[in-house]
Amino acid sequence: MSVNNLPETADVSPYWSEIVTELEPYIPGEQPQLVSLIKLNTNENPYPPSPQVAAVYTEQAIADLRCYPDPASMALREKIAAYYTEKNLDQNSDLGLTATNVFVGNGSDEVLAHAFCAFFSGRNEPILFPDISYSFYPVYCNLYRVDSVQLPLDESFNIDFSLYMQKNGGVIFPNPNAPTSIGKPLASIERFLQKNTDSVVIVDEAYIDFGGESAVALVDQYPNLLVVQTLSKSRSLAGARLGFAIGNKDLIAALIRVKDSFNSYPIDRLTEAAGIAAFNDEAYFNDCCQKIMATRNGLVRDLKQMGFQVLPSQANFLMAKPSSMAAAELFECLRARHIIVRFFNKPRIGDYLRITIGTDADMQVLVQALKDIIAG
Amino acid sequence: MSVNNLPETADVSPYWSEIVTELEPYIPGEQPQLVSLIKLNTNENPYPPSPQVAAVYTEQAIADLRCYPDPASMALREKIAAYYTEKNLDQNSDLGLTATNVFVGNGSDEVLAHAFCAFFSGRNEPILFPDISYSFYPVYCNLYRVDSVQLPLDESFNIDFSLYMQKNGGVIFPNPNAPTSIGKPLASIERFLQKNTDSVVIVDEAYIDFGGESAVALVDQYPNLLVVQTLSKSRSLAGARLGFAIGNKDLIAALIRVKDSFNSYPIDRLTEAAGIAAFNDEAYFNDCCQKIMATRNGLVRDLKQMGFQVLPSQANFLMAKPSSMAAAELFECLRARHIIVRFFNKPRIGDYLRITIGTDADMQVLVQALKDIIAG
Repeated sequence: MSVNNLPETADVSPYWSEIVTELEPYIPGEQPQLVSLIKLNTNENPYPPSPQVAAVYTEQAIADLRCYPDPASMALREKIAAYYTEKNLDQNSDLGLTATNVFVGNGSDEVLAHAFCAFFSGRNEPILFPDISYSFYPVYCNLYRVDSVQLPLDESFNIDFSLYMQKNGGVIFPNPNAPTSIGKPLASIERFLQKNTDSVVIVDEAYIDFGGESAVALVDQYPNLLVVQTLSKSRSLAGARLGFAIGNKDLIAALIRVKDSFNSYPIDRLTEAAGIAAFNDEAYFNDCCQKIMATRNGLVRDLKQMGFQVLPSQANFLMAKPSSMAAAELFECLRARHIIVRFFNKPRIGDYLRITIGTDADMQVLVQALKDIIAG
Repeated sequence: MSVNNLPETADVSPYWSEIVTELEPYIPGEQPQLVSLIKLNTNENPYPPSPQVAAVYTEQAIADLRCYPDPASMALREKIAAYYTEKNLDQNSDLGLTATNVFVGNGSDEVLAHAFCAFFSGRNEPILFPDISYSFYPVYCNLYRVDSVQLPLDESFNIDFSLYMQKNGGVIFPNPNAPTSIGKPLASIERFLQKNTDSVVIVDEAYIDFGGESAVALVDQYPNLLVVQTLSKSRSLAGARLGFAIGNKDLIAALIRVKDSFNSYPIDRLTEAAGIAAFNDEAYFNDCCQKIMATRNGLVRDLKQMGFQVLPSQANFLMAKPSSMAAAELFECLRARHIIVRFFNKPRIGDYLRITIGTDADMQVLVQALKDIIAG
């Protein structure tokens, strides 16, 4: 087992800036190096990227790594704009996106970090986000010294927008929410946007392609709406580091200003090409997402049959609460069988395990292991 | 001609944070999309990456892009530590680096940005850097609200460390300096380090492999020394985005804290493997650097024969001052012939062109073009 998932620490050094001392860094899900492991802890896609992605890694493209990428990643931004414009045209919308509506970054985490700097830092009011949500948000608040108020999910783990009707310096939430897996309907998000017009609202759609309703459809109507997505999950490119934001061009311009004050060239040449290829292969994308949703439905059924409570998921993971033993204990039992899921030792969700949807074969091994463990 | 090199601007938006409004983003050298261009403006290596780099882009490695990278990039950090330990052992030093002495980032620009946050932000005294230097330093100062004093190069464009003997919140300089190409001897840097012990000194060695003396040899003796390097130049990986820092483990721990508060996974899986492969192929690396230095020597001779003043370069570029026409005019004449060099419309260096060392064939075309232009 590698130790690479442990945060590296040091005592405070006189050379550190004050902010370094105060940071509480994010701790990602572990990336153990064990072979023959069933890894269901970081919501990776069980399927490889599209064959069209593989085709961009040519001898010539690798030789061309001697050259810098296009710092503005225009080809990729144009592709994303065209892709979502076309997707929406299918729904008889008149959304017309251009590259000026798209920002790309080194994973959606980098996009979110720049967005905290661009829209949330230095505000007079605190930003608002759910108390059970992506645990990087409070980390960004520390880094950019942003005040925040964390608002409780309701008793069904839903985001209750009525609580967000207060003065704020910004709002951010995942849709579907993570790690709860529950999505909000687009109509509900739009009603909130109609009332919250003075600050930026970021909808973090890392898991949107597994059954949610994307707020990209609304960006032309709400100049304060920023939608953030990633190619890490539904497009199987977690290892290539690519995320993006879609919004009004003034919001995108702000992100570009921050990016160009931080790192001119965040996107690998090959990653830009891979991202374009991923958006070009819509059939493969749809097939992967459909397979994952079908596998998810099967796992929900199996888990419920075993007495688990399972939150209604629109993501590529489930939050499942065992009935006959503690989640922490079940986590360890699965781990002993080389099945790694995620356990959050936190209020309310400490009774649950977060389980990434793998292949059907992965899920069969998981279900059998759960049966064996529960049978004792 | 693409417009991708133009900074994108917008009027101030009510949704922007104050810092966005105040930023003055870095403007990288243009990346024109013209084919059949001789591009000598961004100091790219004319040779492709090592064949060992190309070998990492296998079908399996591309399929594995569905998985996240190791967030700590341990394999690459261990490789870099071993590589520089071994290099220094050759020189009868007892430098013993481990992964705790190495930080990696998305290009050396990201490493520098995190270093400004980790070591320079919130200091009581201004940081110091040369007035003619890497133009990203004042941009980082704006982003992290760091006060700075820019100290003049001497009449020969050398860094004069006697000016730096003042209270400061940190010191940063490139060695060799960019865009002047002139290096400082290691003994001179060490004398400065002996006197400046209260703040972090960053030696930015983007171009060190073309004849300079690396300060990596000193990191075990000076706990406030951070050496930053890149794989973009000497290892032909500008397109893959990989830079690193070497220093005392407490400095590295600070950078890791900032990175883990910003983006857990900045390094593409394939880029990490490519970086390891690049360090494994020492023969190829040496061959490329030797060829570039030999080509540089030839170009210096040719330019001097044509009446140019050329600064003494330890980099993969030259600063050359034409005698018979203005640099700005010569820049345009070269551009009309599809040869792109870099011109800085700034005091003192506005008389010079910065010319990247390409292949011998590139340089022959350049020299012939210069002769034709000067002959009128």
